[in-house]
Amino acid sequence: MIERLCIIGVGLMGGSLALALRDAGYVSHVTGCGRSQANLDAALKLNIIDSATTDPAKAVADADVVLLAVPVGQVGALCKTIRPHLQDSAVLTDVGSVKADVVRQVEAAFGEIPENFVPGHPIAGTERSGAEAAFADLYKNRKVLLTPLTQTSADAVNQVQAMWQAAGAEVEQMSVTHHDEILATTSHLPHMLAFGLVDSLARQKDYAEIFRYAAGGFRDFTRIASSDPVMWRDICIHNRSAILKAMDRYQADLEIIRQAIDSGDDKALLEIFTRAKSARDKYAQ
Amino acid sequence: MIERLCIIGVGLMGGSLALALRDAGYVSHVTGCGRSQANLDAALKLNIIDSATTDPAKAVADADVVLLAVPVGQVGALCKTIRPHLQDSAVLTDVGSVKADVVRQVEAAFGEIPENFVPGHPIAGTERSGAEAAFADLYKNRKVLLTPLTQTSADAVNQVQAMWQAAGAEVEQMSVTHHDEILATTSHLPHMLAFGLVDSLARQKDYAEIFRYAAGGFRDFTRIASSDPVMWRDICIHNRSAILKAMDRYQADLEIIRQAIDSGDDKALLEIFTRAKSARDKYAQ
Repeated sequence: MIERLCIIGVGLMGGSLALALRDAGYVSHVTGCGRSQANLDAALKLNIIDSATTDPAKAVADADVVLLAVPVGQVGALCKTIRPHLQDSAVLTDVGSVKADVVRQVEAAFGEIPENFVPGHPIAGTERSGAEAAFADLYKNRKVLLTPLTQTSADAVNQVQAMWQAAGAEVEQMSVTHHDEILATTSHLPHMLAFGLVDSLARQKDYAEIFRYAAGGFRDFTRIASSDPVMWRDICIHNRSAILKAMDRYQADLEIIRQAIDSGDDKALLEIFTRAKSARDKYAQ
Repeated sequence: MIERLCIIGVGLMGGSLALALRDAGYVSHVTGCGRSQANLDAALKLNIIDSATTDPAKAVADADVVLLAVPVGQVGALCKTIRPHLQDSAVLTDVGSVKADVVRQVEAAFGEIPENFVPGHPIAGTERSGAEAAFADLYKNRKVLLTPLTQTSADAVNQVQAMWQAAGAEVEQMSVTHHDEILATTSHLPHMLAFGLVDSLARQKDYAEIFRYAAGGFRDFTRIASSDPVMWRDICIHNRSAILKAMDRYQADLEIIRQAIDSGDDKALLEIFTRAKSARDKYAQ
């Protein structure tokens, strides 16, 4: 149970957590903070938050738990702003899709890794963004990965874990490095491929016609290219080495397919497609 | 209205057309033909077809319209088999995802381009296959592209167009070459990228864990990697040059993103992602 929760960044991620915790009766008061007054007004109107401010210093002043739900590029500056205003006992956590760089930013802002800081990342989302995209079931049966450090207090981890469980999520722990590698592969890389495909088509001269003949498979494949550009720019910048590694491996593997097509190697193509279908059917239903 | 329709390949595509035409009262009798007796039995049981045979020669003997709904690699051999058994007036059409090579195969089998052959391609489908995947609404409000040749009879085109319209589709015409280039970009390329991604992951040693942390975006992105491997091997072999051209352009464009990440060029990344999101939101809803 949380008395006062402060959510900085009341978008799809932050807003959905607030809705889920309110539905569960797990929180007494939610303060929303963000730079857009219009988005905060929408969040108030949608009963996502109880009170709103554009001032992070005010927002965190009486909070028991502070959730950073902003693009990962903003974490460092935000932490510098809120640091003098946090209660000593306040638990700080985040929802960033990269963890090593977020930890680095927090450490730089605080001069150390605060024992009450619990790096977190819910494996959930849609391509939509903003308070109006939030919904209470976003985290239901979804995984939330926590990547606590040696400095992290067990009590803070327990509080953050209980919070996500109250929102319906399954919580697991792993190391910062492992998290960033896994996510580069399963999330960051597919986003690059989808953004890359749509942009590649959009820059062709007959692009309107090309999109006209796109079927359902194309729509599914490119859905993630509707995701927030700022959030993804930040992920690229802040998980650079793991993403590059994943892209390099992918480009090499794609080149194998390209060569099989080029040389008319029907056996190799059938083998690759069969293996892919089998893995997709087994693991990604 | 069609008296006797013969569908060779009673899978998702052929079976769904039969269901739609039967629902519309547009066909009196549907003969299903295929190599798998089990699939034909399923199609009979599901009332997709009225009669079944594994012998293409028998299947086409009294047909007014013959639909080839088999992987494109099988069109040539099939045409050689059915040619002596077709009625003179029978209209022949297909659903292949590539057109130039299908036309080439038909021409080789018949010694000329038959005036009653109407190359066709419905832009519809799911990742599922077989008679049990068929459903009557598959083509509703979907586009069907016909690519008639100078030799093609206008009457045959009209018959095929009316058939697809009866199944709920919108019919358009374009050239064979243009079709193959457009589809290489909007369909064949995305399938290569999705097959490539899943196969790349499936060959990593910790693949079970990687898939464990895949979220909804990954599932959407890779759905098309569950498509039929034989069908896609054939598409690759038979639309080789257009697919290679699309892959080369894509790989070059993906390399731009890779270099922007590598050099930390946040402006370029934001620009690419913003342009992609804008195009996706505008054209691919």
